[in-house]
Amino acid sequence: MSKRVAYLGPAGTFTEQATLKYAADAQLLPFASITAVAAAVGAEVAEEGVVPIENSLQGSVTETLDLLIHGPPIFIRHELALPIEHYLMGKPGVEVEKVQVIYSHPQALAQCRSFLERCFPKAQMVAALSTTGAVEQMQQSPTPAAAIAPLRAAELYGAEVLARHIQDNPNNVTRFVVLGHSDHNPTGGDKTSICFSFAEDRPGLLYAVMGEFARRNINLTKVESRPTRQVLGEYIFLVDLEGHREDTTVRDALEQVRGMTSMFKVLGSYPRMRTNPHPKG
Amino acid sequence: MSKRVAYLGPAGTFTEQATLKYAADAQLLPFASITAVAAAVGAEVAEEGVVPIENSLQGSVTETLDLLIHGPPIFIRHELALPIEHYLMGKPGVEVEKVQVIYSHPQALAQCRSFLERCFPKAQMVAALSTTGAVEQMQQSPTPAAAIAPLRAAELYGAEVLARHIQDNPNNVTRFVVLGHSDHNPTGGDKTSICFSFAEDRPGLLYAVMGEFARRNINLTKVESRPTRQVLGEYIFLVDLEGHREDTTVRDALEQVRGMTSMFKVLGSYPRMRTNPHPKG
Repeated sequence: MSKRVAYLGPAGTFTEQATLKYAADAQLLPFASITAVAAAVGAEVAEEGVVPIENSLQGSVTETLDLLIHGPPIFIRHELALPIEHYLMGKPGVEVEKVQVIYSHPQALAQCRSFLERCFPKAQMVAALSTTGAVEQMQQSPTPAAAIAPLRAAELYGAEVLARHIQDNPNNVTRFVVLGHSDHNPTGGDKTSICFSFAEDRPGLLYAVMGEFARRNINLTKVESRPTRQVLGEYIFLVDLEGHREDTTVRDALEQVRGMTSMFKVLGSYPRMRTNPHPKG
Repeated sequence: MSKRVAYLGPAGTFTEQATLKYAADAQLLPFASITAVAAAVGAEVAEEGVVPIENSLQGSVTETLDLLIHGPPIFIRHELALPIEHYLMGKPGVEVEKVQVIYSHPQALAQCRSFLERCFPKAQMVAALSTTGAVEQMQQSPTPAAAIAPLRAAELYGAEVLARHIQDNPNNVTRFVVLGHSDHNPTGGDKTSICFSFAEDRPGLLYAVMGEFARRNINLTKVESRPTRQVLGEYIFLVDLEGHREDTTVRDALEQVRGMTSMFKVLGSYPRMRTNPHPKG
């Protein structure tokens, strides 16, 4: 039996595309929310779950971060990145110059604003709850309409692609993580995600934690903070670092950090993808 | 003539409440977005603008952070906090036990989920674009309805309060900032917000920056990262620190940091509010 992989659905979204890229042969199970994907993994409805964690324009997906911090024990075991490419699509045979209404998720409409102002200055923009919902609304529209959605939605719904890669900023990439009951074995090119907080608000505590990594030459690839949900101004820090939690130096550093913090959690070690396709000089 | 203060509207929202708390005698001008508030200040339609920057449960308001990072020159000159208290309201004389539909913004509905499940297990929840929009929809509803909104909305719309403080988590506080053409003079109890990034992804750069503050005993009250919007995995750091940019030690530290970073901006120095009303032992 093929592996069951839960993902943030519905079919036709960028998360489905990422899940197909990760595990094309798996049995894909769509869920309505990030929390539901994690619950499906927790209840063993699926062996793994795929959720977005970060976008190059919008930043972190806070629902995923808060789930990793506050949710039931679940681990990151993979990461992968997907370029976010928006397509304009219509019913087969629609005449582009007659399009009066354009449906999409507000975020997709915002990401294609220049294209829309240039090419469809008179069309009405209508918000939909998801990009696939936009395709459905487009198909039911009595007036000539189009929808902005991923290419996969055009395939699934039999829509005709009218324009491709219409997003204003070409640097639009989303990073996804694969969640499971355990993290990944060491591969030699790994990354580890941790989160921690402090019982007291004393100057220099975060600096001292970062020093444990710096003096072992462990590179931090991400430092982020989220609210504790207890008191405004108190934070939980999320740090991504290079190396596997079983590497001797990383293990030593994590042991030190555990002793310096009031809450400490290893969210997982997993193979590190190349995040920078266009490295600077 | 009284001071004109722009705010994220419409009237009846928490940002209006915060603006009234900040400047009760000012002429309040509502704007439809955070970007529009900043533009109003930039164009001198208003002397100051009030926008939310952080919530104790949801975290940072990323639109405000990105505006401060990427937007036109504008400074933080004040901060203030407001407890977020949700009220259930209906048309005057409505019978609570007959309420069939409850309108609100999805975030407000989510923050009152336990109350709604306990007290209105059979009512239908309907999403509105804003809490004041919810009050309008409630007033036009042919079936007995209620709306979840701030107390101020009940006053403005003549609605009757049916239940108070119905949010599930009592630690729900939003921090607002006042934006202007200049920041605040030193008061002796100040805070400074900065942002910066690095041209190269070299281990220890952020640690070195934090060291400049640590060895001068300057407390960092917040460390946060946002995407550069150029390449996935490259970040702009936002740091809040205690002290005014004109204090000798802070000025020295900022000069050092400016030399270590490729982008560096002082977002403003302003009087520090007490963020922790329930200090730990």
